[in-house]
Amino acid sequence: MTFAERAPLRYPATVENPAGNSRFVLVCEHASHCLPEVWGDLGLPEDLRRAHIAWDPGALGLSRALARRLDAALVHAPVSRLVYDCNRAPDQPGAMAERSEMHAIPGNIGLSPEERAARTAAVYAPFHADLRAEIVRRIAQGSAPVLVTIHSFTPLWHGLPRRVEFGIIHDRDDRLARAVFAESRDSGLVCGLNEPYSAADDVTHTLRLQALPYGLANVMLEIRNDLIATPEAEEAMADRLAPILGRALAALPAPQGAG
Amino acid sequence: MTFAERAPLRYPATVENPAGNSRFVLVCEHASHCLPEVWGDLGLPEDLRRAHIAWDPGALGLSRALARRLDAALVHAPVSRLVYDCNRAPDQPGAMAERSEMHAIPGNIGLSPEERAARTAAVYAPFHADLRAEIVRRIAQGSAPVLVTIHSFTPLWHGLPRRVEFGIIHDRDDRLARAVFAESRDSGLVCGLNEPYSAADDVTHTLRLQALPYGLANVMLEIRNDLIATPEAEEAMADRLAPILGRALAALPAPQGAG
Repeated sequence: MTFAERAPLRYPATVENPAGNSRFVLVCEHASHCLPEVWGDLGLPEDLRRAHIAWDPGALGLSRALARRLDAALVHAPVSRLVYDCNRAPDQPGAMAERSEMHAIPGNIGLSPEERAARTAAVYAPFHADLRAEIVRRIAQGSAPVLVTIHSFTPLWHGLPRRVEFGIIHDRDDRLARAVFAESRDSGLVCGLNEPYSAADDVTHTLRLQALPYGLANVMLEIRNDLIATPEAEEAMADRLAPILGRALAALPAPQGAG
Repeated sequence: MTFAERAPLRYPATVENPAGNSRFVLVCEHASHCLPEVWGDLGLPEDLRRAHIAWDPGALGLSRALARRLDAALVHAPVSRLVYDCNRAPDQPGAMAERSEMHAIPGNIGLSPEERAARTAAVYAPFHADLRAEIVRRIAQGSAPVLVTIHSFTPLWHGLPRRVEFGIIHDRDDRLARAVFAESRDSGLVCGLNEPYSAADDVTHTLRLQALPYGLANVMLEIRNDLIATPEAEEAMADRLAPILGRALAALPAPQGAG
């Protein structure tokens, strides 16, 4: 029995601190390495099912630590990106990747259109509908939410070390990213604007989908995962980044009154 | 008891012909003048609750006639725009308009943030989640859907007659709009590109929300409502417009193979 035959399933987004008082809405698309039983092991050994190809280690812990400091809402995805990467549109190769870094993902090779549609309906569509609901509720109430997506990246990429520690990535609207970059200069971190990825790598889907249509200030953050490898390190990184985000937001022009 | 206290309500989008074989997905945000009882009469007399301020007369009939000719899916909203205009973001003044043309809408004046959020959750969020689900299912299956939103406008605006009969409106991506405009030259209709409205009037929210993030070809069509005032007129207009849409789509470069 294929997954599609067992559908419909629906994995809603997890929403923490929805009543948070700040304008920040934090998003963690790669929060979980959970592989629901219905998809089996995708043909991967356990170590790979818990490695960076399955999730962004440290990103959820850091996101929670930031949410507490900023009194922000946090929306995260409950399913491993091995099943569906919620930061990719369904036609992007990485949405249900057949390979990640040097590893083949056997359970994703040659998916039928029906299985692709079933995973999209089960994971991607509910995640983005639930995130959208959080965003539009705030807009309807007269707030101007600020979208910050939080990711981590590996210290090594195809065997080469990465120098950058804190990457700040923007799409078409670069206001908040440039402000975060400016406020990061004394952070003690090696910062990179549009490093180690950029919108040209098609990694800004959530920003395009959730922030740009509403004109919301937005940024994608990438933290090198060796710097957030323990709960203590996550907290320490949040101590560094929360004031940067606060100052960056304060440096933006006030939102236009709406409605 | 306010509406917010009676929430949560959820008015899903109506989806017709979801298995349609063409790439067209037709959208009619202003299909219905239905005012669910929970919102009362908004302080309007019955004639205004059935007038253009409440819906786009003829747009749904024309959409259905086009869907049959094109074998297209059709997604339409079940609630009057007097409650929530699904072609507006929650912070746009027209989302829950206090005025429309020369008429005040008493039931929309001074809405609390909670009532604005409740209407957004009841009408706007489910409509766009359901439309999104139709779109991403097609993308996941390897199709490249084409979004066409269908509207009607009044022959008179603040007492002045409008000359245009068929308006073709685009947002940032003008590929399909220009193709439709080119193919309309021999239609016998007075055509206008970005008439009687344009993106500068903030009328392209659905295109921005549903088509641009996925790079889908898209266009907004506006038909003068005196030309689609009867079922026969709707069918006759569909006879004119369906071949134009088909030729316009055929004139576009083939979509990039994806995923």
